[in-house]
Amino acid sequence: MNAEQPATPMKLAVVGAGGRMGQTLIRIIHDTPGVILAGAVERPGSPHIGRDAGELAGIGPLGVSITDDALSVFVGVEGVLDFTAPAATVEFAELAAQARIVHVIGTTGCSPEDDAKIRAAARHAVIIKSGNMSLGVNLLGVLVKQAAKALGDFDIEILEMHHKHKVDAPSGTALLLGEAAADGRDIGLGQHSVRVRDGHTGPREDGTIGFATLRGGSVVGDHSVILAGQGERITLSHHAEDRTIFARGAVKAALWGRRARPGLYSMLDVLGLNQ
Amino acid sequence: MNAEQPATPMKLAVVGAGGRMGQTLIRIIHDTPGVILAGAVERPGSPHIGRDAGELAGIGPLGVSITDDALSVFVGVEGVLDFTAPAATVEFAELAAQARIVHVIGTTGCSPEDDAKIRAAARHAVIIKSGNMSLGVNLLGVLVKQAAKALGDFDIEILEMHHKHKVDAPSGTALLLGEAAADGRDIGLGQHSVRVRDGHTGPREDGTIGFATLRGGSVVGDHSVILAGQGERITLSHHAEDRTIFARGAVKAALWGRRARPGLYSMLDVLGLNQ
Amino acid sequence: MNAEQPATPMKLAVVGAGGRMGQTLIRIIHDTPGVILAGAVERPGSPHIGRDAGELAGIGPLGVSITDDALSVFVGVEGVLDFTAPAATVEFAELAAQARIVHVIGTTGCSPEDDAKIRAAARHAVIIKSGNMSLGVNLLGVLVKQAAKALGDFDIEILEMHHKHKVDAPSGTALLLGEAAADGRDIGLGQHSVRVRDGHTGPREDGTIGFATLRGGSVVGDHSVILAGQGERITLSHHAEDRTIFARGAVKAALWGRRARPGLYSMLDVLGLNQ
Amino acid sequence: MNAEQPATPMKLAVVGAGGRMGQTLIRIIHDTPGVILAGAVERPGSPHIGRDAGELAGIGPLGVSITDDALSVFVGVEGVLDFTAPAATVEFAELAAQARIVHVIGTTGCSPEDDAKIRAAARHAVIIKSGNMSLGVNLLGVLVKQAAKALGDFDIEILEMHHKHKVDAPSGTALLLGEAAADGRDIGLGQHSVRVRDGHTGPREDGTIGFATLRGGSVVGDHSVILAGQGERITLSHHAEDRTIFARGAVKAALWGRRARPGLYSMLDVLGLNQ
Repeated sequence: MNAEQPATPMKLAVVGAGGRMGQTLIRIIHDTPGVILAGAVERPGSPHIGRDAGELAGIGPLGVSITDDALSVFVGVEGVLDFTAPAATVEFAELAAQARIVHVIGTTGCSPEDDAKIRAAARHAVIIKSGNMSLGVNLLGVLVKQAAKALGDFDIEILEMHHKHKVDAPSGTALLLGEAAADGRDIGLGQHSVRVRDGHTGPREDGTIGFATLRGGSVVGDHSVILAGQGERITLSHHAEDRTIFARGAVKAALWGRRARPGLYSMLDVLGLNQ
Repeated sequence: MNAEQPATPMKLAVVGAGGRMGQTLIRIIHDTPGVILAGAVERPGSPHIGRDAGELAGIGPLGVSITDDALSVFVGVEGVLDFTAPAATVEFAELAAQARIVHVIGTTGCSPEDDAKIRAAARHAVIIKSGNMSLGVNLLGVLVKQAAKALGDFDIEILEMHHKHKVDAPSGTALLLGEAAADGRDIGLGQHSVRVRDGHTGPREDGTIGFATLRGGSVVGDHSVILAGQGERITLSHHAEDRTIFARGAVKAALWGRRARPGLYSMLDVLGLNQ
Repeated sequence: MNAEQPATPMKLAVVGAGGRMGQTLIRIIHDTPGVILAGAVERPGSPHIGRDAGELAGIGPLGVSITDDALSVFVGVEGVLDFTAPAATVEFAELAAQARIVHVIGTTGCSPEDDAKIRAAARHAVIIKSGNMSLGVNLLGVLVKQAAKALGDFDIEILEMHHKHKVDAPSGTALLLGEAAADGRDIGLGQHSVRVRDGHTGPREDGTIGFATLRGGSVVGDHSVILAGQGERITLSHHAEDRTIFARGAVKAALWGRRARPGLYSMLDVLGLNQ
Repeated sequence: MNAEQPATPMKLAVVGAGGRMGQTLIRIIHDTPGVILAGAVERPGSPHIGRDAGELAGIGPLGVSITDDALSVFVGVEGVLDFTAPAATVEFAELAAQARIVHVIGTTGCSPEDDAKIRAAARHAVIIKSGNMSLGVNLLGVLVKQAAKALGDFDIEILEMHHKHKVDAPSGTALLLGEAAADGRDIGLGQHSVRVRDGHTGPREDGTIGFATLRGGSVVGDHSVILAGQGERITLSHHAEDRTIFARGAVKAALWGRRARPGLYSMLDVLGLNQ
């Protein structure tokens, strides 16, 4: 891309390499210039141990066997991509600290104790952690916060649509965007959100943030934040076409982390938007 | 427009001429080629009696005084536009039958008894009655019914947005579109509609019709019907820019009625879509 | 689905089974209740001859070997799905006529001579042929035609967006929708389309159909037809999430064809919309 | 709104008070708490001289006569709203400097010489000048610039729709948004914009900014900036419902200017977004 691009591709490992997201990560690494798959880890006892990671991911053999020895993999790579579970992620963070490499964490559901351990590991590792690794959604959150602040008397509504199999509403990302809007207004989302409208609702209460949910078909995930004022409206939307965007975001984070100093970062840092 | 267009403009009267919708009707008649304001009626005791209808509507004097003598007006016109109230509308229908003219009814809230009287009057008058006079919404209903039928296994969702002062949800038009979809599926809307989604909802139930409501700013009225299948989606939307569309629809209905035989019609007949 | 559904699944063959679309067809047949893969054909000399069709399509062995002997396959199935090339399609139509089966044709680029031969074959085969097999796009065309007719003085605009690799504009589907709109108006598209707007254009000419094209990212295909009148707008849109919708449409066509009499049909017949 | 709000409303004058935009400004001032109409100016020789500004604007007499003596008006007000023409605006800026008041300029088409004179006047007056006074469009420009920068490898497309009477394409606001996107990418818009796509275009060239234009009906003005990447899309849109938003923006600018020190500002300063 540019003159500063290092000549050698960044060596990456995938943990949880046999899972659905692990396989997606392997395919995306394979497709992305500037990175190369150099390790693949599964938990001890996994039936995938010993298999070729590329073959398992459906892209043909890559010469990388899946192993349960994470540390030996970590010392040979520059970064590790991790969409596993909290307990495993905490362990991987400690190993990443020992190996002094980049650890990209897309795992969700970490407790405050888990987060404290991850923060401790970040004294020696570059750790990038985010609840949604998509570049677009992270940027959208930043834009929503700014818009909510600048257009302080506009009404804010958040609309999302997902496939018919989704079992909860609103989506986590819709709530994340609601938090961004509430942040921009310096209010708490909990006390100001309106999550249901049916029958006689009365006029819209000023300062609230409304949510609306659509479900149907195979929609991967659409989100819109609408700011409606007198005579004009701003709509800020994100449309996900497929689930590979989370893997792409993780690879981008790893490449960014290659040049960063140890510390705990978010996708906002990767995007240069953490003011 | 075309060779069949009669040389003389159609003479129209407006009832409820002093109200907000009455004034809009007067302005739209004034702006529309092929029609001319020839009468303006208010209820006895209205402070507007005797005023010039055009002046009241803010477009300068038209030489048409507002009167409370409806019959004397009706015998001198070819059509009357009526967005008043059920009791008045029933009376106007009877007068229209006596005068054998076109009666366009946008009044809502008529009881079955009112409707029976209107139907009786339609033996002698051309009566066109619709809950929403906008051309676009009426057409949308027809398209939604067809789409719901043709794509029988797609999930149907109905989304609407209105200004922050609206006090009920979903809008009457959203429900009308829901009825059209249910008609296309040969099901009842009541038993199949999902009007609230919040928290743990479980997967979407097959065959349901979902509603979602947005409120904010000064939005006149947006409606979308989404049919979501495996791998594809159809969205059928109507966007109202201002409230004059209901008046425009009424004028179009009157012009259509000029060539019709006595009977009770809807906007679907006007649009040539009543199969 | 309903009581009339036959107990035995419909036996289908795929021609061009080794190509990208052929493999997609095989996967969709495998995923769809009521149909079963019973044959797979490639041209003589294809490297895929003899391979298991399911294995090639990445879904594991199905016990169906790819062969170059189309006729022996056709006599053992009830329908054949064909997204190949005109010359091959004409031959397959003749074989389908001999075997008296259903032939679903998604092949594009047929000459008038090809079409004449296909029509001749349709005396003995049920042939369903369409330039776009997606249910949604076909339905949209029908709705657009009706809307264009009913809202005769609305301005029609057609907008499409596709991925950045697409090399022509507007898309074939956008033109198909433009034809539907022109049909509804009883005009020719060629003389009434406006395909470029830049600089001083002057006011929009009445009765024209405008096109606008967006390109970017990995968009599979979005199409919108906008009908804009005074004070209101109708938008009829189709959003394709992935390319499997064409395969799904073909399977749906085959199932419909199972109950039809020999003849040449389109997706409009399958959708019950060919009035 | 808040404790700092001064008890006395801000006295405003409107120049070009007899024109369409002048009348809109008068109506919006009348409707907005915190401001009051205290002067109305027309050019010498205008037929409106001596008339009551409110009566002319259709809201009943306000006790403010239209005059051609701008200076005597300016010394009695705190701010002036100006959507006139470049030559008049330059003069008004000099009078505003003498009167040391706020001058809000929505006039377009100023030459570099005009701008230099306005800049000079801003040594003594608070001057807020913008090509589009709508809050929403100005905010959108800021968000677009950021998004274009953060998502450096996404394809940027700009879509606009306006009413059928608009005679040029793309709209000035679409170009303004294109400039914002180009700024975010540190490129010039001129060399990177693609304004026409028709026929065989070849694949989309990386780094370009595409424009597409829709025309129809009575659309006041819709603008969307789409950033399309691999697997995801961000869309940032503005929808104008009516033309009063420009007047509202001007009043908001005046209120902001009341507390500012002399200088030349833009709507970005008013919105607190000029970093």
